[in-house]
Amino acid sequence: MTVLPLLTRIDHVGIACRDLDAAIGLYQATFGLEVVSLEVNSEQGVREAMMQVGAGRAGVGEVGVGYVQLLEPLTADSPVGKFLARRGEGLHHVGYGVVDVREALAAIGGLGVRLIDERPRHGSMGASIAFLHPSDLGGVLTELVQAT
Amino acid sequence: MTVLPLLTRIDHVGIACRDLDAAIGLYQATFGLEVVSLEVNSEQGVREAMMQVGAGRAGVGEVGVGYVQLLEPLTADSPVGKFLARRGEGLHHVGYGVVDVREALAAIGGLGVRLIDERPRHGSMGASIAFLHPSDLGGVLTELVQAT
Repeated sequence: MTVLPLLTRIDHVGIACRDLDAAIGLYQATFGLEVVSLEVNSEQGVREAMMQVGAGRAGVGEVGVGYVQLLEPLTADSPVGKFLARRGEGLHHVGYGVVDVREALAAIGGLGVRLIDERPRHGSMGASIAFLHPSDLGGVLTELVQAT
Repeated sequence: MTVLPLLTRIDHVGIACRDLDAAIGLYQATFGLEVVSLEVNSEQGVREAMMQVGAGRAGVGEVGVGYVQLLEPLTADSPVGKFLARRGEGLHHVGYGVVDVREALAAIGGLGVRLIDERPRHGSMGASIAFLHPSDLGGVLTELVQAT
């Protein structure tokens, strides 16, 4: 049985950038944020940094902690590469915490919302994640994040 | 003296929509979110809803609580109206919590980041808010939120 509300927190905002190191420097200098994870996700075609927002103890999924996720495309024909070509740098998606991403996908898919990922895949910092299609969600690319 | 990091939490994601009631219905039906505030902000030219994400007790600025802020323009020539005409529905801005919005503006402005608001103005649910210019922040319209 699915418990509502499905979303437990704003996990992160995903931001597309052309130069990851420059973007990290900008968020450090402007807001004092620090990188807690730096990864290459070949499946998604990105090099990415998670910069922590909030005074938690950097536990993944901890209440009160969120992340600015900076995304640099590995190639021009990756999803983020195409996004940059079409719209330029800026907000790319939002990720919300869920308790169980499989259950959430089943519940949301059952409502007729199109799923980009029918099954969870690997996200940042070991999380299980899945994307929902923006066409059925008011133009917002939406990610569900089950922290490990 | 400004204490870093300046940002205490992801306060909200701002989403531009053409029909506020339809957008509210979508977020209720899909994710089980509920409206905690419904306001008209004539200065910003929007009718807006705040829908709570996270299991807090709906205290403004409470740790672990964030909001989906749905924004419907009052007129086509308002900032959100122009955004819709140019980019369509979707992610519009991100709002971060700060302890003191005046101090934060002074610190960030001192770095040369362009401020849309030189002084705080009234935001949702009684907060003091200010916007930073996306041109100096990697294309991201960024809002600072000091909860009351």
